[in-house]
Amino acid sequence: MASWIPVEAISDFSLQNLPYGIFSTANSDPRVGVAIGEYVLDLKVLATEGIFEVPGLEIQTLRQPTLNAYAALGKNVHSGVRQRLQKLLESDTQSAHVLRDNQRLREKALVPLNNVQMHLPMSIGDYTDFFVGLHHAVTCAGLVKPGGTIETLCPCFYNLPVAYNGRASSVVVSDTPLHRPNGQFPVDGKLVSGPCRKLDFEVEFACFVGRGNELGEPIDVNSAEDHIFGFVLMNDWSARDIQMYEATLMGPFNGKSFCTTVSPWIVPLEALEPFRVAPKETPRELPDYLMQKQEKSAYNIPIRATLGANNQRYRVADCNTNNVIFSFAQMIAHHTRGGCPLRAGDLIATGTLSGPNRENAGCLLEQTRGGTDPYEMIAEDSAAGNVRRAYLEDNDIITFTAQAMSSRGNVGFGSCAGKILSAP
Amino acid sequence: MASWIPVEAISDFSLQNLPYGIFSTANSDPRVGVAIGEYVLDLKVLATEGIFEVPGLEIQTLRQPTLNAYAALGKNVHSGVRQRLQKLLESDTQSAHVLRDNQRLREKALVPLNNVQMHLPMSIGDYTDFFVGLHHAVTCAGLVKPGGTIETLCPCFYNLPVAYNGRASSVVVSDTPLHRPNGQFPVDGKLVSGPCRKLDFEVEFACFVGRGNELGEPIDVNSAEDHIFGFVLMNDWSARDIQMYEATLMGPFNGKSFCTTVSPWIVPLEALEPFRVAPKETPRELPDYLMQKQEKSAYNIPIRATLGANNQRYRVADCNTNNVIFSFAQMIAHHTRGGCPLRAGDLIATGTLSGPNRENAGCLLEQTRGGTDPYEMIAEDSAAGNVRRAYLEDNDIITFTAQAMSSRGNVGFGSCAGKILSAP
Repeated sequence: MASWIPVEAISDFSLQNLPYGIFSTANSDPRVGVAIGEYVLDLKVLATEGIFEVPGLEIQTLRQPTLNAYAALGKNVHSGVRQRLQKLLESDTQSAHVLRDNQRLREKALVPLNNVQMHLPMSIGDYTDFFVGLHHAVTCAGLVKPGGTIETLCPCFYNLPVAYNGRASSVVVSDTPLHRPNGQFPVDGKLVSGPCRKLDFEVEFACFVGRGNELGEPIDVNSAEDHIFGFVLMNDWSARDIQMYEATLMGPFNGKSFCTTVSPWIVPLEALEPFRVAPKETPRELPDYLMQKQEKSAYNIPIRATLGANNQRYRVADCNTNNVIFSFAQMIAHHTRGGCPLRAGDLIATGTLSGPNRENAGCLLEQTRGGTDPYEMIAEDSAAGNVRRAYLEDNDIITFTAQAMSSRGNVGFGSCAGKILSAP
Repeated sequence: MASWIPVEAISDFSLQNLPYGIFSTANSDPRVGVAIGEYVLDLKVLATEGIFEVPGLEIQTLRQPTLNAYAALGKNVHSGVRQRLQKLLESDTQSAHVLRDNQRLREKALVPLNNVQMHLPMSIGDYTDFFVGLHHAVTCAGLVKPGGTIETLCPCFYNLPVAYNGRASSVVVSDTPLHRPNGQFPVDGKLVSGPCRKLDFEVEFACFVGRGNELGEPIDVNSAEDHIFGFVLMNDWSARDIQMYEATLMGPFNGKSFCTTVSPWIVPLEALEPFRVAPKETPRELPDYLMQKQEKSAYNIPIRATLGANNQRYRVADCNTNNVIFSFAQMIAHHTRGGCPLRAGDLIATGTLSGPNRENAGCLLEQTRGGTDPYEMIAEDSAAGNVRRAYLEDNDIITFTAQAMSSRGNVGFGSCAGKILSAP
């Protein structure tokens, strides 16, 4: 598929992608847009011009400052809008003239990406962080407790998608800086209160919920994908010293709740169809409510983490969304099994997506063996020297990017970045 | 203080209380009200009539279907409205005539409690459950792990208010029935998937946040009370078998997220002034950010739990809000220490408020020693036989009530009740 809008070969935003975001410009309030090449298509403008004729589409949902109302309309509406947008933007369709040949509308509806500010795309009711990364779990079990295995520390790990409730209020959009958190933790056997000394990132993949469910009405695993609006990259920033001290009984709290960063563009479920793979360790025996007919229920998408420091960029890790032992559909089926309601805008993440080797470690806890073995990060500019990190330093910038390539075009996620400011 | 509205000696809702709620009638949509005696005062009607002249009060906040916008106005506004309401309702003030002697307005603004339906009073952004109950923690440590103590299982217990993030979407208002949840758990060493067999309640006390804070800007412990809008009773329903199996690493998830019930009336902070007491185990050494100048930072409020079954009512437990080792101000200071934002409508709970003896156990896990020693519950009607429970059965109704008595009038919370329906 080619578009009449120029899409570079390296662009994240081909016609196969068409991710949703909330953007503003110097002259406009936050509104719904779709990325294509180096542009954002202003869906509020298109809606006002009566461009959409999609059954079930309530046009006012495209005039909101978040995507919640639109996401709640459900899969069929999103699919219809996607097809309509592809027809408007594809070179060789009869519909292309509607926008391409209408200079007034084009100038109004197409905004250069360079001119926009991105916002948190959804109002997040609840944020859930799962723990379904195979290598992350196995490696961390050994690090958290000497001789520990994931089977002894978490006997349910292979039998159900383990999760904890995250903090919704501290989820921010990419490029929002964050302060190193203060907290309590032991140092050399003595309890101290002050700035975190073991600040870490976590490479994660997350979905936003579209249509929800009612209290007491579980979602079947085989229709669970219909409840997914789309996907983002996520950095689950972690204060390891605070986390390890507080989380012996009740799970992570202040060790995580100081900031969680998501990428601004929500990539639709349909855009990821070409990249389906089976989750790890499948098939295996599971209870009926987790038995998903679709075997290729995970995705093969490489995610790269880089460090920005000293005005250089360094390679940190290469992870992949396929390093999971449960699919999003299984996570949703488990999440709602007891009747918990999901709502449009809920954020559901995988946990850290480490691969098998050190260069695939999705967090420094793993990569530096709990901070005991600093990791050498290679500068992208070969003339620059490398850097070593045990944990993150003030002014470090961690950026995740991800791009999946198919014959139908690239599907990328933009970037998920955050700069660390000193403790307040 | 006496009101010209009759307030029975046993009423929860004296002039000293004036709790906020969201109510509707057959003829009106959900709106803000204040309980007094056997009536609800319709604040939307009063606001429309121009009755309020309180600096900083944005009248449209009293026309919303939740209390979020009003709560966000902050302590001074709430204090001003409370004083104005007391003047309108007190027998001997010059302002009493405004409502008392205006039959048209009185008939419009005073709605009998019997005629209203109560709704969840706030839209809850995030719900946090702390674990600061002294006796609950000590007893459960021994039950969860043979020979376990709270010091070994949770070394930070006395040094910081331990907490986990709860699930906001499954918080419901009193009288909402709940289904017994399905889940995975081991039975006799074999993993099963099906209805929970160890369904429990937890007696808790909770506050709703009024004014919030920004990301990265902690709240000082000595101004933290200014961020509390008011208090409710809370039942943190728990599926012990699901919880024990899932929560070894990441804390409670499906074991709690199927339902959490709150009482409908938010009792203002000011109403509880006469009931201040110091938390347990104080003073003790704590880091600066937890050093609260106000020593009487907890409350002495008895909470009673009863069981409704076989058309009888049985006494289950007598707890007290004073069984905590940290105050709400300390919880808020700790919660925001790393920069986590609180928002108006956030729900913050204490954890289970068990007292020292078996009749004070705030959950069946404690009262029946993990279900091994069923507890005999005494019928309120002495002619009826007693019942025994290891854990809760279908059709059981658990109700919490609480009333604190002072010379200025009773402060009660209405009831926090839920009936258990069978698993779906």
